[in-house]
Amino acid sequence: MDSLEFHEKYKGKLSIISKVSLKNREDLSLAYTPGVAEPCKEIYKKVNDVYKYTIKGNTVGVVSDGSAVLGLGNIGAEAALPVMEGKCVLFKEFANIDAFPICIKSQNTEEIISIVKNISPVFGGINLEDISSPRCFEIEERLKKELDIPVMHDDQHGTAIVVLAGLINAVKVVKKEFRNLKIVVNGAGAAGTAVSKLLLKEGAGDIILVDREGILNKNNKNLMQYKKEMAKITNKESIEGGLRDALENSDVFIGLSAPNILKAGDIKLMNRNAIIFAMANPVPEIMPDEAKKGGAKIVATGRSDFPNQINNVLAFPGVFRGALDHNVRKITDEMKLNAAHTLADVVKDVKEDNIIPDVFDKNVVKVVANSIK
Amino acid sequence: MDSLEFHEKYKGKLSIISKVSLKNREDLSLAYTPGVAEPCKEIYKKVNDVYKYTIKGNTVGVVSDGSAVLGLGNIGAEAALPVMEGKCVLFKEFANIDAFPICIKSQNTEEIISIVKNISPVFGGINLEDISSPRCFEIEERLKKELDIPVMHDDQHGTAIVVLAGLINAVKVVKKEFRNLKIVVNGAGAAGTAVSKLLLKEGAGDIILVDREGILNKNNKNLMQYKKEMAKITNKESIEGGLRDALENSDVFIGLSAPNILKAGDIKLMNRNAIIFAMANPVPEIMPDEAKKGGAKIVATGRSDFPNQINNVLAFPGVFRGALDHNVRKITDEMKLNAAHTLADVVKDVKEDNIIPDVFDKNVVKVVANSIK
Repeated sequence: MDSLEFHEKYKGKLSIISKVSLKNREDLSLAYTPGVAEPCKEIYKKVNDVYKYTIKGNTVGVVSDGSAVLGLGNIGAEAALPVMEGKCVLFKEFANIDAFPICIKSQNTEEIISIVKNISPVFGGINLEDISSPRCFEIEERLKKELDIPVMHDDQHGTAIVVLAGLINAVKVVKKEFRNLKIVVNGAGAAGTAVSKLLLKEGAGDIILVDREGILNKNNKNLMQYKKEMAKITNKESIEGGLRDALENSDVFIGLSAPNILKAGDIKLMNRNAIIFAMANPVPEIMPDEAKKGGAKIVATGRSDFPNQINNVLAFPGVFRGALDHNVRKITDEMKLNAAHTLADVVKDVKEDNIIPDVFDKNVVKVVANSIK
Repeated sequence: MDSLEFHEKYKGKLSIISKVSLKNREDLSLAYTPGVAEPCKEIYKKVNDVYKYTIKGNTVGVVSDGSAVLGLGNIGAEAALPVMEGKCVLFKEFANIDAFPICIKSQNTEEIISIVKNISPVFGGINLEDISSPRCFEIEERLKKELDIPVMHDDQHGTAIVVLAGLINAVKVVKKEFRNLKIVVNGAGAAGTAVSKLLLKEGAGDIILVDREGILNKNNKNLMQYKKEMAKITNKESIEGGLRDALENSDVFIGLSAPNILKAGDIKLMNRNAIIFAMANPVPEIMPDEAKKGGAKIVATGRSDFPNQINNVLAFPGVFRGALDHNVRKITDEMKLNAAHTLADVVKDVKEDNIIPDVFDKNVVKVVANSIK
């Protein structure tokens, strides 16, 4: 079956069911009037009891404005819905979390913040999804500050956790020191920014962040505000130029950018035993065999048909499961670092083609959840 | 089990499940990346395809600001959640509709309208619930105008449909003419207003609408705007005074007000074979035996432990089922009248203690749904 037929057959991938029976008047009087007044009164007296008597404690809102969906770009709220439903399916199947898609028509930063705050009472956590940068940064930061439930932009931090986990294991294979790595991150959007920040937190010595205009450099005055801030904490030697200049004598390439932008010759510019994470989807920055031809030792992609699949589903279900179970109201950098290490440790037999757990590995959610506390 | 234990045991009454299997990489590639891009692209090309490929066509948002919850009043968004979950349970169990609670922290009219519009992409219908008057009128009216999905404030129109259905059958028992009835409606809030309007549409000759200040009268200049409008279309003879003045020589009392405000003596003021709908919950305006003592022929209440239970669950599941199935984008007065007649007709053996179907009657949803088209 193709995906269109599949989606038409199911008419949406989620269903909302009742956990309680409703067969007779007694059932009705417990679940609805008059009995339902009792938990209402308790919550009115003590608002935190909403976790005790309602769905809040196991419910996550998957919030998107449809502005940066997969490789499709700004397709809007309605067209984003199949993706958000899919995300909710993953929450349920991997972490037994009840997730509901909230697709917002507005793409105004303040309005999105206000809407999410206003509809937050029913949610125990907010997963921001496919919101374009730089708006995604302010939306996440403000919601983290102004809400007392965990808020995470998965495109940023889910990606960062899984990339770091993969890199921790890749470094073991090539026998290099993490802090000595020269890392090139291509793509300075939501994911590239968050990945760079988390790698720095982990102790990466230097990161060269590259966007379509070239290497981010603190001498460049024309950068957007958030890129200026990234330029301050990356590129210690103030290298200038383009992606190829960055690649020279680098150890790691992390692509969160566009399909087919590299050739074997570009990989040859890198140091020996290069590590390539080519995560553009569905077509990576360079195909694994081409990268190997250029001398790469380890290649990871976002795809399931090659080894080393870097997939967010390895992080977000466990992160939210842990936050909900451990009453965590803010997901900190410490927790993300712990999650990445825990995730890396799930792989028992680390080798070239096995740096990251399989997405269907049942242990992943448990151990990641355990690291969020 | 009491209701608090019950709610604590289930920790919320809803669960969101996946309709699709997610056992292997092929499943994942159909439900999520890369396959999910296909329906996204179709919806981007033709927005109405969101009904074809997503949950929208069977999903209703149950929206409340917690400002007028049951008999509890303005308890706020969190404390309203158990009721909204219960409502969603009823949607599922009675009409197989996927309903999700949206509890909004703001109680500002414009903000609520804006939020509901902004999060409407995922919903095929909006059920407004427990929003206080007069804000509920503007919120409903504006959303009906500005959204292309059905929007219904159930406290208003669900109640009106069921009351009219009950009254149609009650009139048969007492052998009076509907258009000649003198009807007293006590309570000029959301429900009282909507009930009065629908009874007038059905052809009621005169309605005396009474609130805490007394009978609504067009000579009273101090009324709120919406009550002024009601005063224009009711009380043809410009009667003045209080509830007892209204009851004199009336045929029908419809209470949507407060517990225990009437005694047998008050019913004696009414015409012979009086019809009493005492719907204050959980304690009615007058208990059935007391009303009968005063000479009432037919008594209905909101309670399940007396005959003739006037319960909104007889209307809203079928109304939304019909709207979703028949692609109805506005619920009109005509449809509400049809629904009421259809609902009345479900009762085969109409008599004093049997004017309205049982809430568990399986036919109800089907026939009501069939009348909404």
